[in-house]
Amino acid sequence: MDVRTGLPVVGMVGAGQLARMTHQAAIALGQSLRILAQSAQDGAALVAADVVIGEHTSYEDVHAFAAGCDVVTFDHEHVPTDLIRSLTAAGHAVYPAADALVHAQDKLVMRAALSKAGVPCPAWATVSSAEDVAAFGDQYGWPVVLKAARGGYDGRGVWTVPDATSAETLIEPGRAYLVEERVSIRRELAALVARSPFGQVAVWPVVETVQEDGICVQVIAPAPGLSAELAGQGALLAVRLADELGVVGVLAVEMFETEDGLLVNELAMRPHNSGHWTIEGSRTSQFEQHLRAVLDYPLGSPSMTVPWAVMANILGGPDGGMALDERVHHAMARWPDVKLHLYGKAPRPGRKVGHVTALGTDLAEVRARASAAAAYLQQGGHT
Amino acid sequence: MDVRTGLPVVGMVGAGQLARMTHQAAIALGQSLRILAQSAQDGAALVAADVVIGEHTSYEDVHAFAAGCDVVTFDHEHVPTDLIRSLTAAGHAVYPAADALVHAQDKLVMRAALSKAGVPCPAWATVSSAEDVAAFGDQYGWPVVLKAARGGYDGRGVWTVPDATSAETLIEPGRAYLVEERVSIRRELAALVARSPFGQVAVWPVVETVQEDGICVQVIAPAPGLSAELAGQGALLAVRLADELGVVGVLAVEMFETEDGLLVNELAMRPHNSGHWTIEGSRTSQFEQHLRAVLDYPLGSPSMTVPWAVMANILGGPDGGMALDERVHHAMARWPDVKLHLYGKAPRPGRKVGHVTALGTDLAEVRARASAAAAYLQQGGHT
Repeated sequence: MDVRTGLPVVGMVGAGQLARMTHQAAIALGQSLRILAQSAQDGAALVAADVVIGEHTSYEDVHAFAAGCDVVTFDHEHVPTDLIRSLTAAGHAVYPAADALVHAQDKLVMRAALSKAGVPCPAWATVSSAEDVAAFGDQYGWPVVLKAARGGYDGRGVWTVPDATSAETLIEPGRAYLVEERVSIRRELAALVARSPFGQVAVWPVVETVQEDGICVQVIAPAPGLSAELAGQGALLAVRLADELGVVGVLAVEMFETEDGLLVNELAMRPHNSGHWTIEGSRTSQFEQHLRAVLDYPLGSPSMTVPWAVMANILGGPDGGMALDERVHHAMARWPDVKLHLYGKAPRPGRKVGHVTALGTDLAEVRARASAAAAYLQQGGHT
Repeated sequence: MDVRTGLPVVGMVGAGQLARMTHQAAIALGQSLRILAQSAQDGAALVAADVVIGEHTSYEDVHAFAAGCDVVTFDHEHVPTDLIRSLTAAGHAVYPAADALVHAQDKLVMRAALSKAGVPCPAWATVSSAEDVAAFGDQYGWPVVLKAARGGYDGRGVWTVPDATSAETLIEPGRAYLVEERVSIRRELAALVARSPFGQVAVWPVVETVQEDGICVQVIAPAPGLSAELAGQGALLAVRLADELGVVGVLAVEMFETEDGLLVNELAMRPHNSGHWTIEGSRTSQFEQHLRAVLDYPLGSPSMTVPWAVMANILGGPDGGMALDERVHHAMARWPDVKLHLYGKAPRPGRKVGHVTALGTDLAEVRARASAAAAYLQQGGHT
């Protein structure tokens, strides 16, 4: 409890854009997010008052950080599971708890739990050698998708493997892998839900996530043309998984839409790129909802504020020499109703340095506006 | 320019809720508001990364603060006009400039300028003695409204004076006063506009402000039942004043609606309580717009996101013993779609410690929801 305000202190391990936007939401709730940052230059560290510098893999650093917090939560999945268990053992409230979060940290644990629960997934197997991959590929067809069990994000740690010999160069000894069939998909979807320790859940409409090179470039809320049946199935699946895995906070369920229905691809247990549109597009943003959930506050309404909300990521890359500030000027002049979110991150190719959200009633127009604004901010010119 | 982000640094003198909410808006623009706070316990100082402790009346403190800023702006009107001029003389960009801001600092200067410009105002006169007040009252009728030229806000420095003898106890030697006729009003309105140095303006719909004991308790956007003619007049008046006074940033024009049309009551040149509804109710919040304006960025769309937005202030006061955190729990459970904004301020009777915004399509329902939520958060029970 912050004695100055009489309100709780939430600590978030990690200081990227998710912590940055969670801090914005915390301000409205009368709070100030406590952030464990690797560097004072991290996006969230640039804007928050209560920043501790430390390593998220250091027991000493994370325990010292947790000491002043009513609840500890996460900006990413990279805190070792055992470290999280040691926080709980020391009496700290940690959400999501280690037993839930491990499903977002370890793809093997996740696939095993989902298969056990009868949740539809691509066919998969644990593999530890190129021979294992070859056997799987020969059974389910090539190419296959090889995934490192831990440590991947934004397409890293995931490889499309065309044949047995290719697998040999990828598998490192001592690292855990799984292999999955490459399913034929119509598109990718995501269902976002928040769950409190009390067990209250609130689910946002299922969205479509548009990927390029394994990186999400656009999110459309709600998923266009999705049947009421599949929209309901996706939302119920997210609620069911949050409940069965004991998630507290926001759970993002990334899914494939196939000819045969929905398959679960990945899980994330934190605010997620597929939910950035909720800042303006929902009555309660995923960042506010995550705070409410981990604090066991009653959840806010997840209803949409507009018929269509489209989020487009701004990726770092060659910018044609135009300074960011100038690109912002031009984009604001051209799109006075597009909402801008910049993360304070140095641009590197492919890195998410910000996003825009466009809102409206005509989906094609809203999508075009979001894409054009993001492309301009990214490159300083039209695509 | 912040070399870490390539984006400008805005400095705001004063660390109350306006700076707090401006910092939230700055985060989305990739910035971090630099704040001059009197105390580390100030509402904005609790949540911002770049806080300097100092006195807003100290030349040394304010000049040192301005040194790292691309633009300096204000959370309140209490920085001495000459100090602001000295900042400009030293080469700092200060918005609004002293020549504009003085109209929000000094009611005598404001009335003289508005009268000269032919803007409709209540009848008024400079007074320096009870005799002056008596002469004015005898001419325009009692009671009259006595105002200190400088230093008043939220009803402070403003007195309703029923007769000549009452004026004697109020007027302090050496302080400047004006007296105004007490006009018969239908209601109070406010027009909010933002203006950039380039001269671009963006105006929000005229709102109704509901006052109790001189303190704004509720703001209704747009003003219900206001004729298109008066709505247009109010908006144009705000645009004209922003232009004629050379305002840069947000200008709030508080007005009386009377049988004979609109009269200007007060001016404020900063984000204003009458514009808090814009956070959710407008595509561009007054806080983001103020930043865009003082940075000479193109302005954002001021269009409304909903038919009705109602803001209700949460005032400090006796709370019946229920802790704030508990009141927040209950209010969130009862009104999952009401947006909460708490300022991190210690509650004192009559002090604005937060606000709520309710949004919707049925005005009576939206007003009732906002009032009930604010009353609950204020008192821990229903009124």
